[in-house]
Amino acid sequence: MGNLADILDFDPAEGPPSERMLQILTEACRLFATRGFDGVSVRDIAEECGISKATLYHYFPDKDAILRPLVLGITRALHLHVAAALPQDAGPVERLRVFMTESVRFFEQHRWAYIVSSTVFWTDPKLRHRRQRIEWRDRHEALLRGILADGVEAGVFRIADIGMAGRLIFGALNWMPKWFDPKGPLSGTEIAERFLAMLLDGLSPR
Amino acid sequence: MGNLADILDFDPAEGPPSERMLQILTEACRLFATRGFDGVSVRDIAEECGISKATLYHYFPDKDAILRPLVLGITRALHLHVAAALPQDAGPVERLRVFMTESVRFFEQHRWAYIVSSTVFWTDPKLRHRRQRIEWRDRHEALLRGILADGVEAGVFRIADIGMAGRLIFGALNWMPKWFDPKGPLSGTEIAERFLAMLLDGLSPR
Repeated sequence: MGNLADILDFDPAEGPPSERMLQILTEACRLFATRGFDGVSVRDIAEECGISKATLYHYFPDKDAILRPLVLGITRALHLHVAAALPQDAGPVERLRVFMTESVRFFEQHRWAYIVSSTVFWTDPKLRHRRQRIEWRDRHEALLRGILADGVEAGVFRIADIGMAGRLIFGALNWMPKWFDPKGPLSGTEIAERFLAMLLDGLSPR
Repeated sequence: MGNLADILDFDPAEGPPSERMLQILTEACRLFATRGFDGVSVRDIAEECGISKATLYHYFPDKDAILRPLVLGITRALHLHVAAALPQDAGPVERLRVFMTESVRFFEQHRWAYIVSSTVFWTDPKLRHRRQRIEWRDRHEALLRGILADGVEAGVFRIADIGMAGRLIFGALNWMPKWFDPKGPLSGTEIAERFLAMLLDGLSPR
């Protein structure tokens, strides 16, 4: 499932998570994604890790504390991953291509964590955490809108409503983890390329 | 939130739900959507309805039994709503337009139920129910692909991969309930029209 440590949200003051914490988070993430947060007990997670409930509670006070680092970190990690991959000196079309393919590569690598966090995003009762995620999401959306606006200015895109174009592109990308089959005939990158071609050329004959 | 009775999945042998059952389902749906399934207790739902827990248990044996009719019915209801609205004798472009605008109208009308069910879909441990939803979802996706294939045959669409085009369109539509603001400047129908224009014309200048 990619390197889970890359996406976790841990207080830097507490240092990096231990091997045991990473094991617990990894198993919990897989269980949450397949059975849902409320379909998994602390006992299930401990059993999957081959440890006692008491040992698990030594690392995490409750199930929420296991979920939090998984959920909070992923929007930030997605943004930082895509922003770092964008070629600074390329044109807007190439930057849009990289934005889309790298988003999909991120979903592929962190599929379980992404499923868990996109399910929980709506239902996390802790508003502070939701706000924190929304700030990273807004930054990520602004990055895409910037690429689109640059392209309109350069004359390589013709877009009446940049906000709506961004939402169309995010819809295509963000919906993908719901249907993408890693064992299917097309890789994530190939799918992103096909989406881009359709978005650029349109479905009407030219 | 639209007419909740239209989307519920009830065993026809049991007859239509009573007024009290509809009240419980309506309040539960709103609570689940805002606080998440596990953030809501049976006591919360009973209090919101102004009834005792004992009265609520008379109608529903547990929280799962409240969730089930909300979640199972919505995919079927969406499909039947859109299929009934499609003009039989119109061309593929007009049929695609109606498919998109009516999908969005359905999301607008049943926003809370849609949020609840799209969150739970992934995490419902009861596979039988998931299968049932997937059958309706497959039927719905086949309806859209049929419109696209008709359009390719008629020469009004140029689409290399109809399955991917369908997923692009469903991504745009299905992601929308996550960001759509009913009090925002554009109605759902206007947004669907803008999506359609971008999808048909593409983002590259013609």
